[in-house]
Amino acid sequence: MGPGPSDVHPRVLQAMGRPTIGHLDPAFVAMMDEVKQLLRYAFQTKNALTLPVSAPGSAGMEACFVNLIEAGDTVIVCQNGVFGGRMRENVERIGATAIMVEDAWGTPIDLNKAEEALKAHPGAKALAFVHAETSTGVLSDAKALCALATKYGALSIVDAVTSLGGSPLLTDQWGVDAIYSGSQKCLSCAPGLSPVTFGERAIDVLQNRKTKVQSWFLDLTLVMNYWTDGGGAARSYHHTAPVNSLYGLHESLLMLHEEGIENSWARHRLNSDALRAGFAAMGLKPLVADADHLPQLTALKVPDGVDKPETRRRLLENYGLEVGGGLGDLTGKVWRIGLMGQSSTPAHVILCLSAMEGTLTDMGANINPGVAVPVAQKILFSD
Amino acid sequence: MGPGPSDVHPRVLQAMGRPTIGHLDPAFVAMMDEVKQLLRYAFQTKNALTLPVSAPGSAGMEACFVNLIEAGDTVIVCQNGVFGGRMRENVERIGATAIMVEDAWGTPIDLNKAEEALKAHPGAKALAFVHAETSTGVLSDAKALCALATKYGALSIVDAVTSLGGSPLLTDQWGVDAIYSGSQKCLSCAPGLSPVTFGERAIDVLQNRKTKVQSWFLDLTLVMNYWTDGGGAARSYHHTAPVNSLYGLHESLLMLHEEGIENSWARHRLNSDALRAGFAAMGLKPLVADADHLPQLTALKVPDGVDKPETRRRLLENYGLEVGGGLGDLTGKVWRIGLMGQSSTPAHVILCLSAMEGTLTDMGANINPGVAVPVAQKILFSD
Repeated sequence: MGPGPSDVHPRVLQAMGRPTIGHLDPAFVAMMDEVKQLLRYAFQTKNALTLPVSAPGSAGMEACFVNLIEAGDTVIVCQNGVFGGRMRENVERIGATAIMVEDAWGTPIDLNKAEEALKAHPGAKALAFVHAETSTGVLSDAKALCALATKYGALSIVDAVTSLGGSPLLTDQWGVDAIYSGSQKCLSCAPGLSPVTFGERAIDVLQNRKTKVQSWFLDLTLVMNYWTDGGGAARSYHHTAPVNSLYGLHESLLMLHEEGIENSWARHRLNSDALRAGFAAMGLKPLVADADHLPQLTALKVPDGVDKPETRRRLLENYGLEVGGGLGDLTGKVWRIGLMGQSSTPAHVILCLSAMEGTLTDMGANINPGVAVPVAQKILFSD
Repeated sequence: MGPGPSDVHPRVLQAMGRPTIGHLDPAFVAMMDEVKQLLRYAFQTKNALTLPVSAPGSAGMEACFVNLIEAGDTVIVCQNGVFGGRMRENVERIGATAIMVEDAWGTPIDLNKAEEALKAHPGAKALAFVHAETSTGVLSDAKALCALATKYGALSIVDAVTSLGGSPLLTDQWGVDAIYSGSQKCLSCAPGLSPVTFGERAIDVLQNRKTKVQSWFLDLTLVMNYWTDGGGAARSYHHTAPVNSLYGLHESLLMLHEEGIENSWARHRLNSDALRAGFAAMGLKPLVADADHLPQLTALKVPDGVDKPETRRRLLENYGLEVGGGLGDLTGKVWRIGLMGQSSTPAHVILCLSAMEGTLTDMGANINPGVAVPVAQKILFSD
């Protein structure tokens, strides 16, 4: 129950253990077509360019930036946690300029500040932001931010690593231009793949670049020729696809489709509400206000006087329960508890509350005992 | 039996299907240390910087170039097949200059031409070449090429995607500076990881760069902090490691260690000799001369008048046997038959000869029937 990877369902584990076949085998190619269709469903898009980058989410982020941004461009980067800072690194390593719009960690991106930056930099190529900040557990208003980007003629580049499958995300309806995610959060596949999708405006920018994409491996003009919708003849080898990882992604996307994405969103919300209510009853404080919190991830303030690493060690040793620590400015100040994908169930909620209550009591923390689980149960099973 | 991925052993498939745990879990971190040790064995090196890049071989190639080469540098690139051309793309996308030394496809790299180029470009930063060209089945003299690079003050950058585990490769003894491989060839793991190792001279160059590495994802100065030998405190998060793929690599490296790398090299050689002798008895011609051929991969000339795609289709449908087609200049001219890792066994040799003999006879090719298998058996089982 850390900030990802989430629990992987036995169906997905079994899929990853299927015999490896060739990356150009007709049976594999047929599965690739299904992966694309299922990813379009997950992203709620009709975008032709929808595929999993053959590497973790950081590579998906880099794929978006190196394909769309060129040296000399200006990109407005909103930062309210760790991953906005990583976007800045990406922009600057291309030789482009990052205009940073900073918000406090634990709060969502301020729309007014984002609009001010777009006004102040009329030629900006893109507005980039994180939909769901995994370092803090904050959800920002992606729909409004994309609308702002469009209004000022900039592309939107969206980090949906933690949001995809867990929070409402409507790529086409919101007018998202480029978006990337990860396999190991709410899709509950193993880490290692990064789904991306580009809309028509982004493809236009890609096809009218002045220079070659600086990464050969991530050059989507080449990768697309392997992931083409055309038949066998149209498909050309780029790199050797991670066959078994893609078996797993295919299976996890099938499971999302079977559940229905709206049901998955509702499940994440309900379980998160129960967890937060339980913590509140116990007397623990969340980092993020109720209005902005992410259902997939709760950052919980470490109570005064509690030995944080020792608590995590006991949770792992006694309960097999992993929770994350804080990153960056939040190091030592929060625990990050994931309820993502297959790890978002009533059983996870109850185990986490019970384990945390028992461990914190042993550690001498001042908490209200005996109330968290009943409060959570009432929310989980009230109808 | 194509040019990779090779067959993956059930032990490795089962390993990939183990429950996913966190990429910072103490149990996972302990396994990472073993992966590094086992990779050092496979590469025959003591290099501290030895780790698997979290993406396929193409990303390992890119990791070597973007970490060691900067804009304005000159790199001598030897090309005798497809993958030398990809090296050129890597060099040029950094803003560096690639001096191409070209040899005919199907022949090894000419040492004299490589030395002439080093002489003509005294400030060259690196000499880059492919040890085992997967597009043609040619082995080049990596030891001599690395010695030349050192003699002229250039780094050696070696593509060992297909050679690692299948052909003798002595990283430290040969003075290799930077080398990358892939998981899906002679290591017989699923595709998706790229082992790399950097020697001291390469680390020196990396640590004294004038500019940041242009790829954040592949920046080894950052990746190293996650793959550090130090304990938990010294380890810092970079990207989420592909946990299940690493389970598989760990298991495949254990199997290589159990067999013994010299035994693996000898096995690849024996099975390849038997396959080539069988084809010769049948009357089929290899692309590559005996002295230069790669034991992991045989490129076979397509006999006149034979429908090449139809032959491959029948091999796949009737025998479940995948063989590769030609790439680049060799498209339509050769089949590429792999005997890599777990796909290098007497059973694979005999199946391939029998299936090819039967299929080519059906296709009306002019071959000698009934002799290939006995010839191969004699070589395989003569003692």
